[in-house]
Amino acid sequence: MKLKVGLLGGGSWGTTVASLTSKNSETLLWARNPETVKEINELNSNEKYLPNAKLHKGLKATTSIKETIEHADVIVMGIPSQHFRAVLLEAKPYIRPWVPIISLAKGLEISTKMRMTQIIEEIMPGHPAGVLTGPNLAKEIHFGKAAAAVISMVDKTIAQKLQTVFSSGLFRVYTNTDVIGSELGGALKNVMAIAAGMGDGANAGDNTRSALITRGLSELTRLGIAMGGKQRTFAGLTGLGDLIATCSSSKSRNHHVGFQLGKGKKLEDIINDMNEVAEGVKTTKVVMELAKDYNVDMPITKEVYKVLYEGNTVFDAFKGLITHEVGSEKEPG
Amino acid sequence: MKLKVGLLGGGSWGTTVASLTSKNSETLLWARNPETVKEINELNSNEKYLPNAKLHKGLKATTSIKETIEHADVIVMGIPSQHFRAVLLEAKPYIRPWVPIISLAKGLEISTKMRMTQIIEEIMPGHPAGVLTGPNLAKEIHFGKAAAAVISMVDKTIAQKLQTVFSSGLFRVYTNTDVIGSELGGALKNVMAIAAGMGDGANAGDNTRSALITRGLSELTRLGIAMGGKQRTFAGLTGLGDLIATCSSSKSRNHHVGFQLGKGKKLEDIINDMNEVAEGVKTTKVVMELAKDYNVDMPITKEVYKVLYEGNTVFDAFKGLITHEVGSEKEPG
Repeated sequence: MKLKVGLLGGGSWGTTVASLTSKNSETLLWARNPETVKEINELNSNEKYLPNAKLHKGLKATTSIKETIEHADVIVMGIPSQHFRAVLLEAKPYIRPWVPIISLAKGLEISTKMRMTQIIEEIMPGHPAGVLTGPNLAKEIHFGKAAAAVISMVDKTIAQKLQTVFSSGLFRVYTNTDVIGSELGGALKNVMAIAAGMGDGANAGDNTRSALITRGLSELTRLGIAMGGKQRTFAGLTGLGDLIATCSSSKSRNHHVGFQLGKGKKLEDIINDMNEVAEGVKTTKVVMELAKDYNVDMPITKEVYKVLYEGNTVFDAFKGLITHEVGSEKEPG
Repeated sequence: MKLKVGLLGGGSWGTTVASLTSKNSETLLWARNPETVKEINELNSNEKYLPNAKLHKGLKATTSIKETIEHADVIVMGIPSQHFRAVLLEAKPYIRPWVPIISLAKGLEISTKMRMTQIIEEIMPGHPAGVLTGPNLAKEIHFGKAAAAVISMVDKTIAQKLQTVFSSGLFRVYTNTDVIGSELGGALKNVMAIAAGMGDGANAGDNTRSALITRGLSELTRLGIAMGGKQRTFAGLTGLGDLIATCSSSKSRNHHVGFQLGKGKKLEDIINDMNEVAEGVKTTKVVMELAKDYNVDMPITKEVYKVLYEGNTVFDAFKGLITHEVGSEKEPG
């Protein structure tokens, strides 16, 4: 039995996943922009988000959300976190019963502090909700490079079924059942990626970046476990793996934001110059609140927050991290 | 009370640490090569190993191991793993009672599979043995970049005392008591650094490197725990931190070996072109045996071993890793 895929979102990662699933399964992509749709259907490309990439020929696109959803056996949500709820509500009238809904977003809804699968469960109870996440830089995948991801769902049987929809060639998809941990890893690492980018922009070096990633992992794991995620998930592909990829790569949008801040640019100008959302900017705000709610010490997030929202410089941030007292490695800081 | 430091070894990391400790404490460095000694004393430099670096003016060097050792309150061993035992035996007659001995080496003795602190304990029972390790690229430290390290000793009080000897300015030294875990992290990550270098040399991309580091951490943690190390140590600066720094940086010697292999060069030629030891090449051999002794599955180490010692190509290695079956993320592979 072949599953039909309906994917919402024509950004770089949504388009990439659609191109991957169309190798295995009939896939229809919905984008709001008629030009994007036309370009995918006629030229097999999406130059605005994926310059020079060739999409799979089987991939079709449409501007009709109804058409995308009503025949789909699995819905994939390639929509940024702050628009996720609105698009899901648009799709809701057309979804058939029991159809699983998979999120590709790596952020938290700012107004509710909710994870994307929580939004799915709130709006569409009865539909299995999952997340496809991991260290996946879209541009690399189009140029034939290998990558590994995880499909995380409470129901292992459904996850294994979907594994075959997403896996292809050099794109290897593992499964796990810790949805909370997988989803939080993807969202929280974007804050650390901004911190790592700031360090790189200020030319702090590889020693500092690796220390930052290590302390960052321990920071996000503390919060993640307090929120119900599992330790081992944060040490895996969706936590550490994604953290490293995002913190080490100039291809990451969140790293880019940090990098430009490290070079002394203004946040507003950086965001205006980008054509896609850097989820970490808003996630940082949510994480600061969650740290308070769960009473977890998060020194790196705090310094990133102060640079993004309180006018601190990157120099202040690194000074703040360094003046944290040095003691046993077990302590936060 | 100021402690006097005697440091054995005039390579890049030994010289760097000596330059750091000489800021806090009288430090005497022993090197076998009279030209290195002369250059340190007269020009405050060690151009062969640290091009363009300026050493601390207080640092003095000598070719006399006796002179270095007999007044020292702490001995620091900046000697590669395969020569560690021989130099320690040379030093033994001059060491005063109770003086702690700190290893800087990140490897295992190939003939005995021993860690360096085990060698210290065997040759010098009664002397507290420790290791200073972490994500520390020597060249960055000389150019004023921040870094963090860990001094690991069973006796916490001695470790805290030594913390003040090694810490200075942007070089932050934490403590921990898991000597086995800290030492194994430093040694085992070099195998993974060769693997990451191979991937970079073959242009495998950031997604692959981050997946390799993640799976590599889980692989070395499995062996490390079987050998008596603690999970949290491998997730810290001496495990993950060092792993990331070494796998991501072209300044790492082990990464360099892998990188050149990835470009298709022969191991022999690569080693002949280097003026310092890449510990990982020999460590890989020991780790293969330890994996058998402790019955731990280590797919990445196995592929690195086959490239280093059995004539496999880097292409074979990555194919080997990829054809490992994909299942739940919990499984090895």
